[in-house]
Amino acid sequence: MATELPGTTRPGGRTERTRQAVLHATLAELAAHGYAALTVDAVAERSGIHKTTIYRRWGSAEGLVAAALGLGSEDEWEAPDTGSLRGDLAALLGELVDYFTDPALLALPTASVTAAFLSERAADALRDFYRDRHARSAVVVSRAIARGEAPARTDAVEVIRAACGPLFYRLFISREVVDRSVSEEIARSVAIATGAGAYVPAS
Amino acid sequence: MATELPGTTRPGGRTERTRQAVLHATLAELAAHGYAALTVDAVAERSGIHKTTIYRRWGSAEGLVAAALGLGSEDEWEAPDTGSLRGDLAALLGELVDYFTDPALLALPTASVTAAFLSERAADALRDFYRDRHARSAVVVSRAIARGEAPARTDAVEVIRAACGPLFYRLFISREVVDRSVSEEIARSVAIATGAGAYVPAS
Repeated sequence: MATELPGTTRPGGRTERTRQAVLHATLAELAAHGYAALTVDAVAERSGIHKTTIYRRWGSAEGLVAAALGLGSEDEWEAPDTGSLRGDLAALLGELVDYFTDPALLALPTASVTAAFLSERAADALRDFYRDRHARSAVVVSRAIARGEAPARTDAVEVIRAACGPLFYRLFISREVVDRSVSEEIARSVAIATGAGAYVPAS
Repeated sequence: MATELPGTTRPGGRTERTRQAVLHATLAELAAHGYAALTVDAVAERSGIHKTTIYRRWGSAEGLVAAALGLGSEDEWEAPDTGSLRGDLAALLGELVDYFTDPALLALPTASVTAAFLSERAADALRDFYRDRHARSAVVVSRAIARGEAPARTDAVEVIRAACGPLFYRLFISREVVDRSVSEEIARSVAIATGAGAYVPAS
């Protein structure tokens, strides 16, 4: 039975309940009003946690957003396992399509991406989140290698970037329509490219 | 000698000079302070054009940004022609790397992408800009087809998205380091994938 330090986030403890309340309130405020309008006062009101506590622990609205974006890495998300590389990539991209195009869901991920343009700490948090997602997605490629769908030296994260990149490009850069038919087409292309050795490093 | 309508943008005419002054001042303000802080007053001061004229013609700061982003489609940009698909894609992506990572240049393209999150009209303008860039880049793929580097039915714009997507993904979503070695690696991958028929439509 270890003695806990003050502020340790013991699951179910009061400190952890406070953290969850504050960070989820931060995400809700972020989704509702965006990063530029986020204030500690609004998060205090929504969470029911006194703003003195919030300032002491997170310092500022920027600190809140960085910590709240970190929540994304604490979930139980696992990469899909459909039996083929193309199927796994289609499922993975399909989740992104749902998340970024559903009017009821898109506010939060869109605000997260926007926040990273406005705050270096939010950008760092987003980087950490995607590094974690890349690591959890790599199994899709190691299974493809085991099935003989991809050369042994395939760079798994490069495959994930090749799949996600054109989807996010359409969403946020070229601003084109994105739906399940687009994600399935990208998955098909990347599976063909992977099989052809396109993501085996040159050296 | 056609009679011009009032407000016609005759090259070199006074109306056109006013337009250029106002829209370039808008881009400068956008780069300096970002979309959220852009005001008609600031653009009037920087351009030396009276704000009444600006309001009459562009309506609002949002209208200014949309029109200014449209300037991007008026340039003389042509896709690179290096003699190979891989070389053309590397040159094309290399330009993007320079533009989005040079501290002296990156403010404007970054502000443009951010503006599209905050304004539907800016998003429309960005969509038009990339549609134009896609059309001008397609020649890279038609030349590759002519050289026998790509199957005849290759979807040219899909190749461009597959090249640009992972670069923008690193820049703005996963927030990873981007440099010329990254763009060369992406170009190599997409050239291999193209040769393997990854961007030939399924049906």
